[in-house]
Amino acid sequence: MRYPGLLTRYKHYLPVTERTPMLTLQEGNTPLIRAENLSEELDLDLYFKYEGLNPTGSFKDRGMVMAVAKAMEEGSRTIMCASTGNTSAAAAAYAARGGLNCIVLIPNNNIALGKLAQAIIYGAKVIAIEGNFDRALEIVREITAKHPITLVNSVNPYRIEGQKTAAFEVCEQLGGAPDYLAIPVGNAGNISAYWKGFKEYREAGKSDSLPKMIGFEAEGAMAIVKGEPITNPETVATAIRIGNPASWKTAVAAAEESDGKIDFVTDEEILDTYKWMASREGIFAEPASAASLAGVRKRKREGGFQGGEKVVCVLTGHGLKDPNIAIKSVQAEPMVVPDTEAAVMAAIARLEEASR
Amino acid sequence: MRYPGLLTRYKHYLPVTERTPMLTLQEGNTPLIRAENLSEELDLDLYFKYEGLNPTGSFKDRGMVMAVAKAMEEGSRTIMCASTGNTSAAAAAYAARGGLNCIVLIPNNNIALGKLAQAIIYGAKVIAIEGNFDRALEIVREITAKHPITLVNSVNPYRIEGQKTAAFEVCEQLGGAPDYLAIPVGNAGNISAYWKGFKEYREAGKSDSLPKMIGFEAEGAMAIVKGEPITNPETVATAIRIGNPASWKTAVAAAEESDGKIDFVTDEEILDTYKWMASREGIFAEPASAASLAGVRKRKREGGFQGGEKVVCVLTGHGLKDPNIAIKSVQAEPMVVPDTEAAVMAAIARLEEASR
Repeated sequence: MRYPGLLTRYKHYLPVTERTPMLTLQEGNTPLIRAENLSEELDLDLYFKYEGLNPTGSFKDRGMVMAVAKAMEEGSRTIMCASTGNTSAAAAAYAARGGLNCIVLIPNNNIALGKLAQAIIYGAKVIAIEGNFDRALEIVREITAKHPITLVNSVNPYRIEGQKTAAFEVCEQLGGAPDYLAIPVGNAGNISAYWKGFKEYREAGKSDSLPKMIGFEAEGAMAIVKGEPITNPETVATAIRIGNPASWKTAVAAAEESDGKIDFVTDEEILDTYKWMASREGIFAEPASAASLAGVRKRKREGGFQGGEKVVCVLTGHGLKDPNIAIKSVQAEPMVVPDTEAAVMAAIARLEEASR
Repeated sequence: MRYPGLLTRYKHYLPVTERTPMLTLQEGNTPLIRAENLSEELDLDLYFKYEGLNPTGSFKDRGMVMAVAKAMEEGSRTIMCASTGNTSAAAAAYAARGGLNCIVLIPNNNIALGKLAQAIIYGAKVIAIEGNFDRALEIVREITAKHPITLVNSVNPYRIEGQKTAAFEVCEQLGGAPDYLAIPVGNAGNISAYWKGFKEYREAGKSDSLPKMIGFEAEGAMAIVKGEPITNPETVATAIRIGNPASWKTAVAAAEESDGKIDFVTDEEILDTYKWMASREGIFAEPASAASLAGVRKRKREGGFQGGEKVVCVLTGHGLKDPNIAIKSVQAEPMVVPDTEAAVMAAIARLEEASR
């Protein structure tokens, strides 16, 4: 039997009506991978919710399938967002699948075509404005308020509805909620969505408990931790480089209600964890994703765990989303040797020596 | 309940013993996505087996988990391969997961660090030799024959065993075998593995029929179609740029036994299909993957289908694997306009006009 996609699988928990098209690219149903090696090292029962295996490579597909299906239900022919990253890719893919037009608005400064290539391949029309990201989002809001064009940025309420399904899956995969849910915090919609999902599943009798929600901002973009917006957020973890999170209040509520915490990690901790996770556990996620595990390591160092707790780290996007960071992280050129067995064996010996 | 991974899921069909470690990154269990838009256009019942949603982004994970688990069972501490692409990524990831060393040998010409970054992030040691790819493979074979290092290139027989599980999944997802299985052909191991899987599942009473196997080489690397090795294979579809396929005979047998065919598609057809699939169906796969759908379109043009046949196209790797091709394919810079609602609305109108 084929997995039917999120809207069908969770229709009783979603704003799905008889008229909602059952749009799907088979998003969701992502692996929950036990960290066999790192669990031991950290004295935890550690898991990764590997959201990079959604169709466009990030968790954004969960919310976008819901938002685009509702746009179709409402008769919209065009969706629009301001985004230079994962949101635009997801919007463009579901628009293509649903036969809608997709307009992506971006700031004209620092256009990295690589980040946008995915959206363009999916057929989105990209327009750059002479202004910054906030201005792009403002214009999207103005246009979608006046014209028959649907806004699919995170202020679209259906996005959170779709995203909460990840919490349902975690409960099913573990046979209940974990003790801790560790998650990167940028725009703060995802931590809000998970918390909503965990609460709904407990209310429905599908799980007995709730996790402590521990969210981690990047140090250079830690608006919530600081308690004030950051004007020029900076971090290597571009997917959480946000200075004024849209879901600020619900994120703080999730941390407080669950007896959790919103903390921060440094870029150095993020990049170190990014490589550690790949080389010790075989899991490659984009830098922002590594903030969840980096945060768990920080909490561990600070004595925040007793030992043996069940912890799920959300990995929001695939490592292949940001190949330039991967290349920079491994800058060293390969060793070049003559094409003989002896030369290669000697090189292997040298490499083994060097890594001791 | 958590999906347990391929070795557990299909242990009765695999060379799994009591001593085989149940290694997994939750490979397999990939989506079979119905092509809702393209089915209509091609008058077929068309599906994509989206292998890009394996953990390292390609189908290679299926064979590699089996090969690395057997290496561990046999007490090996190091695996080795010659590869500049998907094989090295999969080998490095499973070596990391299993706690083994991974050595990747590459030719010194045209080292594209981007293609190797994934393997290096997973912790592989990369050595370049002053020689070509064939020489690198020769040295790997020499070394692994003499030293306690396990060869994990496609000549490792466990690779095909793991890969055949994709055919099992297709049968389960469709409730039986399709009429046609369309697949890119490079080294020809994958078409051989699918055919083995379909036959084993029919023998086990899990499906009633067998598909016709239709495989597609790239024109510049069509050794099987021509009937002779290609000395300098060239194609944009790097994952199938192979001049002397290792599984040549079994691939020809699969096509003949199934009443299928090995044919070729041009680079132009591959790139056109690559964009068509993304923009019409929301599915982004690496160029080599598009060879399967490009081949189906060719067969359709040539009158090779009656109409309504159930066809599964195998998409071997995620589009994010080859971001440079995506960027080249969408080279046009975004339109830049002033930051006003009116200017953006005018730009949208111009784009819509242009795409009519």
